[in-house]
Amino acid sequence: MPSLIRDRAASTPDMIAVFGDEALARAALAFEAALARASAAEGLVGADDARAIVQACSGLPDLGALADEAAHAGTLAIPLIRWLREETAKRAHASAGAVHLGATSQDVADTALMLQAKAGAMLIERDLVRLADGLAALAETHAATPMIGRTLLQQALPITFGLKAAHWMLSIDAAAVRFRRECEGALNLQFGGAAGTQAELAGKGQAIAERMAAELGLACPAMPWHARRDGVAGLATALAIIVGAVGKVALDVALMAQGEIGEVFEPLAEGRGGSSAMPHKRNPTGGQIALSAAQRAPGLAATVLTGMPQAHERGLGGWQAEGPVLAELFQITHGAVAAMADVIAGLDVNTGAMRRNLDAAGVGEDVGESLALVRRALAGRETR
Amino acid sequence: MPSLIRDRAASTPDMIAVFGDEALARAALAFEAALARASAAEGLVGADDARAIVQACSGLPDLGALADEAAHAGTLAIPLIRWLREETAKRAHASAGAVHLGATSQDVADTALMLQAKAGAMLIERDLVRLADGLAALAETHAATPMIGRTLLQQALPITFGLKAAHWMLSIDAAAVRFRRECEGALNLQFGGAAGTQAELAGKGQAIAERMAAELGLACPAMPWHARRDGVAGLATALAIIVGAVGKVALDVALMAQGEIGEVFEPLAEGRGGSSAMPHKRNPTGGQIALSAAQRAPGLAATVLTGMPQAHERGLGGWQAEGPVLAELFQITHGAVAAMADVIAGLDVNTGAMRRNLDAAGVGEDVGESLALVRRALAGRETR
Amino acid sequence: MPSLIRDRAASTPDMIAVFGDEALARAALAFEAALARASAAEGLVGADDARAIVQACSGLPDLGALADEAAHAGTLAIPLIRWLREETAKRAHASAGAVHLGATSQDVADTALMLQAKAGAMLIERDLVRLADGLAALAETHAATPMIGRTLLQQALPITFGLKAAHWMLSIDAAAVRFRRECEGALNLQFGGAAGTQAELAGKGQAIAERMAAELGLACPAMPWHARRDGVAGLATALAIIVGAVGKVALDVALMAQGEIGEVFEPLAEGRGGSSAMPHKRNPTGGQIALSAAQRAPGLAATVLTGMPQAHERGLGGWQAEGPVLAELFQITHGAVAAMADVIAGLDVNTGAMRRNLDAAGVGEDVGESLALVRRALAGRETR
Amino acid sequence: MPSLIRDRAASTPDMIAVFGDEALARAALAFEAALARASAAEGLVGADDARAIVQACSGLPDLGALADEAAHAGTLAIPLIRWLREETAKRAHASAGAVHLGATSQDVADTALMLQAKAGAMLIERDLVRLADGLAALAETHAATPMIGRTLLQQALPITFGLKAAHWMLSIDAAAVRFRRECEGALNLQFGGAAGTQAELAGKGQAIAERMAAELGLACPAMPWHARRDGVAGLATALAIIVGAVGKVALDVALMAQGEIGEVFEPLAEGRGGSSAMPHKRNPTGGQIALSAAQRAPGLAATVLTGMPQAHERGLGGWQAEGPVLAELFQITHGAVAAMADVIAGLDVNTGAMRRNLDAAGVGEDVGESLALVRRALAGRETR
Repeated sequence: MPSLIRDRAASTPDMIAVFGDEALARAALAFEAALARASAAEGLVGADDARAIVQACSGLPDLGALADEAAHAGTLAIPLIRWLREETAKRAHASAGAVHLGATSQDVADTALMLQAKAGAMLIERDLVRLADGLAALAETHAATPMIGRTLLQQALPITFGLKAAHWMLSIDAAAVRFRRECEGALNLQFGGAAGTQAELAGKGQAIAERMAAELGLACPAMPWHARRDGVAGLATALAIIVGAVGKVALDVALMAQGEIGEVFEPLAEGRGGSSAMPHKRNPTGGQIALSAAQRAPGLAATVLTGMPQAHERGLGGWQAEGPVLAELFQITHGAVAAMADVIAGLDVNTGAMRRNLDAAGVGEDVGESLALVRRALAGRETR
Repeated sequence: MPSLIRDRAASTPDMIAVFGDEALARAALAFEAALARASAAEGLVGADDARAIVQACSGLPDLGALADEAAHAGTLAIPLIRWLREETAKRAHASAGAVHLGATSQDVADTALMLQAKAGAMLIERDLVRLADGLAALAETHAATPMIGRTLLQQALPITFGLKAAHWMLSIDAAAVRFRRECEGALNLQFGGAAGTQAELAGKGQAIAERMAAELGLACPAMPWHARRDGVAGLATALAIIVGAVGKVALDVALMAQGEIGEVFEPLAEGRGGSSAMPHKRNPTGGQIALSAAQRAPGLAATVLTGMPQAHERGLGGWQAEGPVLAELFQITHGAVAAMADVIAGLDVNTGAMRRNLDAAGVGEDVGESLALVRRALAGRETR
Repeated sequence: MPSLIRDRAASTPDMIAVFGDEALARAALAFEAALARASAAEGLVGADDARAIVQACSGLPDLGALADEAAHAGTLAIPLIRWLREETAKRAHASAGAVHLGATSQDVADTALMLQAKAGAMLIERDLVRLADGLAALAETHAATPMIGRTLLQQALPITFGLKAAHWMLSIDAAAVRFRRECEGALNLQFGGAAGTQAELAGKGQAIAERMAAELGLACPAMPWHARRDGVAGLATALAIIVGAVGKVALDVALMAQGEIGEVFEPLAEGRGGSSAMPHKRNPTGGQIALSAAQRAPGLAATVLTGMPQAHERGLGGWQAEGPVLAELFQITHGAVAAMADVIAGLDVNTGAMRRNLDAAGVGEDVGESLALVRRALAGRETR
Repeated sequence: MPSLIRDRAASTPDMIAVFGDEALARAALAFEAALARASAAEGLVGADDARAIVQACSGLPDLGALADEAAHAGTLAIPLIRWLREETAKRAHASAGAVHLGATSQDVADTALMLQAKAGAMLIERDLVRLADGLAALAETHAATPMIGRTLLQQALPITFGLKAAHWMLSIDAAAVRFRRECEGALNLQFGGAAGTQAELAGKGQAIAERMAAELGLACPAMPWHARRDGVAGLATALAIIVGAVGKVALDVALMAQGEIGEVFEPLAEGRGGSSAMPHKRNPTGGQIALSAAQRAPGLAATVLTGMPQAHERGLGGWQAEGPVLAELFQITHGAVAAMADVIAGLDVNTGAMRRNLDAAGVGEDVGESLALVRRALAGRETR
């Protein structure tokens, strides 16, 4: 089995489940059930056939065997549909022939990936809001708390801690807006058949697609998008930008938590942030997750971008590489966002140390403009 | 001097000029002139001082010397402002002290970069439209031209060439929409001063910023964005997605132009696409530019993403790395878009070869659904 | 659980097992057992204590619980050592205190990763040899088989298929040599303690390290390498270069397998390479694995390179990101190498189509020089 | 013209010249001159023809025009050879036909790139030695200077500053060894002709290649390597690993130079490290160059890795992308190495601050093991 230890170090149990094999198989079967229902509604398959297929889709094949067979076949769809035909035939022998009508492997794979992406997006969205709200509260509380501003890793001029928090908040909010927009553009049903033409469906291809999309909660695109991957690339890069924004928060927190600076600390949690060699030490564990994610996300986003030029109607290698990469991006993004939402919610702020470091820098303490900037940033947020 | 040969192989003279040293120096001086005017309008500097500065800003320092001095100083602003103070003092000695009031090096660098980005975006926009219109025309003309659809680099089922062109068009259109949106979000003035607080401006910082932004044709953000790089990252990834979409067109054209397939050819141009060893050969030169760009863009976008976690109020290393990387991205994006706009405008389509390859595949020739899909895609484009 | 379906689509069961949780836990426990033995040999812990620890290390904690606890603690070592102390105490109560003496979390993590890398390297090495031998046989068999050489995706001049195979072989051989060399440099024990000084070991730190390395089959470095990651980066890039070399073979095979060209085909295997929509179709499934890997490897290698600048004695975020990325690289590399070794072993070569395409190009058929080059390449290989 | 300001901010005048247009044109002409001499020596062209060609090769075409023409033609070789034929004809009319005999565009491009790479490697090598020697001196001087070791950006246990410097030194030394090895493998002549078969040379192809390689100071490979790019990928990744090792030094120096820590400072240089807004400030300018390089190198290395799967005998897009990317890598690598060699040579070490921070951490001051480790590292270096 793949390493749960490594995945858990970087992500949350919820997101790992969203991209797990059971969720993948259920998403693929949801595609087949929706296809059967829609095909029946459009008169292409009988109501009894559709009923048998839908019933069979509520089952679940052996996932270990499925993984082996899919690896051998070169696609998940072939063994899954074989299983589904057998299950359907148990219920109504003649109905097996109505399974997967007019669809191709990539229709199943892409739609399942988008269903997983949608579920993953909801988790990320929830914790992005939690993080941004925590940052807004921090900006509010510390709008006038003076500290030294630092540029090029050197002490510069006074700011307030609220100003720093307001910047963090603006970045997270902006990254969240972009992500929502990319989700709107990308979370589409895939349904085109072998060459993307919705052939063999008696001209009912798009009608079926619209029914399926509605049932599955995805958008229905004007055309299939087998070899147009700009939507997926938009998702991937929007996730990487979230991670970059979260990584900035994590880096600042880690730098401020250095012993000689001591301005903030990650919240204490029983058994967290310890050291196997130095039990007294307090490690920035949330920051570790976010900074690791920030190191990994750019390469993953680049991989999706690299895959955009896919050959002809459905490419070789490119879209097959996207599934694991997008899963990884969703996983580390949620790991980072959730970890820093926790850190910010319980951040231990040492205003005395901020004052001490500011005084030591000897650059005055006028923070009027910082306060004004924080007020403007917070006001802008409320009026959205 | 840096290599013009290498830059010209990948980009256009126009875009190379936009990111050249003269354009950079003029953009930086436009920032200083706008600052002087706005500071005068807000009563922070005298009208005479502003006039002297603005006049001095119409000059241009020796660019070779400036490059050396900027490298030594670690920032362009220091030698440029030294020069500007000297030039201003020649006009009005006392006015030199009013130069660069309340600004920091990164204010100049970021604003200049955004002015260059804006000019670059106009070039890209223009040729994206040209490319997409060319693709729409191709989709229209060949809406019903039958050819073999290919999946996983294997012959599959019939499509029409217009369907292929319609897919290309949709990707380019979608990438253009994203790019416009990211430009709207990112093309912002930078003006925050040393620690990003607009300090030392008697509370007039934001008023000055608004005047400057209006004069320079940039948006004025609610706060400076020295260490919030999501806007720049959004630009960079949107450019990479354009390149990916263009690279897909180039790959398909190159694959269809293979001798054994022979369905399309890049347009003939005197002296272009030749071979130093085989004078009779016709090389896909436009595709070469686009596919090279598609190979380079993901790494460049990843570099900008990697730089997002910047330390504190203004980081070390991160934003300094963005300038050349963003310049490179704009350059190769325009090179790719312009080259493929030319290729598509003059594409040599061999419908006989399409027919021959389709017949040889022996999978029928029904393309009714393809035609319907093309019609829908084109109709959707017109009603936008 | 993480997705076995996605991992199996890209890798082999053997390599997935090497980087699985059981292997990881056993590698970490091997480190602790070796440490106990070496510490006893150097007189730092009692022989009875060491015996109890070594016995306890033959057990295995609940891996699911371990994953959760490690995620919470921020490091695998803390819960694993807690478990090991409990297990040791069951055998000899007082011996629990001798567990993990002088070591730190990263010592365990890095050593375990290198043990996994060593096991993974053996799998890759085995199939690289198989692939290269298959290519040499192909070069030998087809040393004089004429075909058209192609440049810039256009027909150029005659070559032989053996020449193409010889080039593939040289690339794989060269990549294998580099990988072996990087393994020699990188597969090191990590043992430095909290700050990398081998403190608290009565001056016996290096003696203990040498014993541990010998027992574990790793090299013993002159100093710990907690924040020197050039070895790991060398491994990662050598893997990516293997994947690139294999990807080149896969791309050529896929291009030659296009219907209109038809010069080679992947071997037929029952149930492999089929299409869910077009049962008659023969998809290049091995090539799909290799080309997907070639798309993913550069981003993963870049991630490891990005992590090289790690702060101070042991960094935050950087080395923690390496584990999953290196695991992914080993997995996709072995997937690609094994898949293409199978493809080459059973490659279906159509010399008639090669002849037909060459004749159609009309550029003659003189292949004397190609034959000479193949002979030289094969001779060079034998005399190594 | 491309931006000298941006290139100079990241690199040295020497390396920019090595990859400039004049150097490129001279390298390409050196290829043609060597080819003429070798062809004459093997009796394929007359001695007079060769003499006329060699003489013509001592000239230089107009570089601006050459850049335009090369961009139009899609390759530098076409206009360069046209110019060379004209220049040769001026000297001996009939000799023009002997120019470029049996060679192809990529032969010129790859050989010129390798000649530039060789010149660039010498610059990097020189400053790597300077940097490593400086680090060795620092390790020696401060072998016993106590300071606090830091892990996960937290204070941990005592080390010595010499130990930190010894680690830096080991990484630079290791990166230099790898780079030398990759240079040995990669700095090869390219000479294969149109399809890489050394055809049309009367069986003298390899003899000519050996003469050319000897004259040009490159290795002569067993076969041309047009579509085998593992050597170039090895160079690119070795450069990126150097940059990562240098970036680690830069990051540590920048972190230690933080105002609250104050343990080291970059050397003072008149006019360097200043701030346009805060003239008193001392910015880590050398570190800025190195950290920017460390952000950019991984994406550039990934780009070269991505290009490895090149189609058939000579690919489309892939190798054309390598030239500018490799140039960029050489440039930023030398910029980073030279900058940090200067920083280390003049590093301002504040042992009092090290002592103060160590005392404040309250973790003792035993550094005996650190001293022993430094001694071992330095001894290992001397006995190489």
